[in-house]
Amino acid sequence: MTHILKNDLLLRTARGEQVERPPVWLMRQAGRILPEYRAVRDSLRDFIELVKTPQRVAEVTIQPVDILGVDAAIIFSDILVIPEAMGLPYEMVEKRGPFFPKTIQTAQDIAGLKIADAEADLGYVAEAIRLTKQALAARVPLIGFAGAPFTIFTYMVEGGGSKTFSKARKMMYQAPELCHLLLQKITDSTIAYLQMQAGAGADIIQIFDSWAGILPPEHYSEFSVPYIAQICDAITTVPKTVFAKGAFFARKELGRLNCEVIGLDWTMNPQESRALVGEQKTLQGNLDPCALYGSYDSIRKETRAMLQSFGGQRHIANLGHGVYPDTEPDKVRCFVETVKEWRN
Amino acid sequence: MTHILKNDLLLRTARGEQVERPPVWLMRQAGRILPEYRAVRDSLRDFIELVKTPQRVAEVTIQPVDILGVDAAIIFSDILVIPEAMGLPYEMVEKRGPFFPKTIQTAQDIAGLKIADAEADLGYVAEAIRLTKQALAARVPLIGFAGAPFTIFTYMVEGGGSKTFSKARKMMYQAPELCHLLLQKITDSTIAYLQMQAGAGADIIQIFDSWAGILPPEHYSEFSVPYIAQICDAITTVPKTVFAKGAFFARKELGRLNCEVIGLDWTMNPQESRALVGEQKTLQGNLDPCALYGSYDSIRKETRAMLQSFGGQRHIANLGHGVYPDTEPDKVRCFVETVKEWRN
Repeated sequence: MTHILKNDLLLRTARGEQVERPPVWLMRQAGRILPEYRAVRDSLRDFIELVKTPQRVAEVTIQPVDILGVDAAIIFSDILVIPEAMGLPYEMVEKRGPFFPKTIQTAQDIAGLKIADAEADLGYVAEAIRLTKQALAARVPLIGFAGAPFTIFTYMVEGGGSKTFSKARKMMYQAPELCHLLLQKITDSTIAYLQMQAGAGADIIQIFDSWAGILPPEHYSEFSVPYIAQICDAITTVPKTVFAKGAFFARKELGRLNCEVIGLDWTMNPQESRALVGEQKTLQGNLDPCALYGSYDSIRKETRAMLQSFGGQRHIANLGHGVYPDTEPDKVRCFVETVKEWRN
Repeated sequence: MTHILKNDLLLRTARGEQVERPPVWLMRQAGRILPEYRAVRDSLRDFIELVKTPQRVAEVTIQPVDILGVDAAIIFSDILVIPEAMGLPYEMVEKRGPFFPKTIQTAQDIAGLKIADAEADLGYVAEAIRLTKQALAARVPLIGFAGAPFTIFTYMVEGGGSKTFSKARKMMYQAPELCHLLLQKITDSTIAYLQMQAGAGADIIQIFDSWAGILPPEHYSEFSVPYIAQICDAITTVPKTVFAKGAFFARKELGRLNCEVIGLDWTMNPQESRALVGEQKTLQGNLDPCALYGSYDSIRKETRAMLQSFGGQRHIANLGHGVYPDTEPDKVRCFVETVKEWRN
């Protein structure tokens, strides 16, 4: 499908082609920052119902393309659909985040989980991707995504967010073999899920390792990287982005993955990251999401400094984290427009 | 007083002398991990009353010396006594953390804050230090401490803990000059406070920059490092430790501070940190606090690997974060004993 896209800047940049300017999109661009999203969300029972209603997912996925002018759409969904598809349902508690009534603690708990059957358990995401692609009418590429197995593992053991994630991390010291069993089941589920997304029309996929930064480097190499590597090796039809938030210590290792793009958070210096990751990847990021609280002048200045620092090629402009919910859409537009005015 | 200490290993190591083995203590060693602490705590109204009762502070400060066998005591207190002394009181909400009923948002709010009068507003800490020193009878050194101005600033603006600290960080983009005004007032208060602690008998002081890791490197250099530098320059009678959790990107810069010791969290590789910090500092840390959930064998193995990695000299053994509240005291003892058995 790629060749018929009207704007394929993101894909060309991911593949390492010389481009006229960096493409731009934002993590969480479809969501709470847009009043148009909130209107859709309020017309439904809750967040999880929205995620499972393909027609509405397509609608909110496309909103930022129309309203913010970004160079890519990202399918509106949630990384926690994977535990649910494996048999561990969750609730989304307003202003508190996700909550799992039951968590994984024992070998028996793990044995009770199934490997997700992508079409049967997650077909609603494929349907949402097909509807979105249709409605996008090849204007921009569509990004599919999943959580990294380690991050999903953390939620399944911890039962929700945490300051220290000490419950999930305890298992790595007390029962590492159980961790690997669970991580493998999550990985198998995620591969099936991302293959389905690519088959349904996702043009590129991103793996979010949101809690990467809480692990000692040795644990990250043991419990996260090998599973991301399996996913990267298994997905062969579309380019892949790996965003391991906080894993400054793993940049060299991530540079060896079979993927095209490495995401950086806002604490990671672009030049230093380039030296660690190597020349063979495209980098994505990494404006401080709080920079969008500044004045328009300040946003332009910070955005240009960021673009300059990445050097214009092999760079996908983004924030270093998901856009914060109280960010004004006009400030986001200012960020997007500043990137679009840039010329290499 | 130093020369009469029976165990001055921590101070000799901080000063860079050759030592027989690394000294060992733990951040949050006085506190919830010890049933003996909880007994004291339960006999008082709340945490804040304990902090303000010097006799009981001395008692819980010394407990880990007796019970865990550590090479130093750290005065039991809280970094948030500084905002309180400046006129911004807080509450400690059980299992939720600190909460400020009023926060700092405007120039007027900042003008309304005073620079702490150490003796008048924080004399209870000096008294606790004097009582502790007396009761310690020169067995081990006593560590004094304060929060880094940036971390204190964050609490005063945000009003409590946060996942993103976007309220405090917003001010850095919207009103940087206000941030500097507030940071300077906090710094002046902190210098007076730490000078008082040293005068009362603290043998070494530590500055905790707990939220350092949430800032982009440029903001850390602008809003945190210069204020820590002022403190380091002002405290001349005792050695100083700076622990900037998460600030992997600032290690080179921190290495140039006028301090003796740099603390590392568990994500920071000791050899890489040594290369960045330089040869002139002692390093402190950095076992993963979750390692203490492992078996005794695993704790010994992880602790020895950590000691090996630091190389035995210019190293103060510690965790890379405060000990987690559900850690078994016997596991902490195993960590302490493993360090004490080490021979350079």
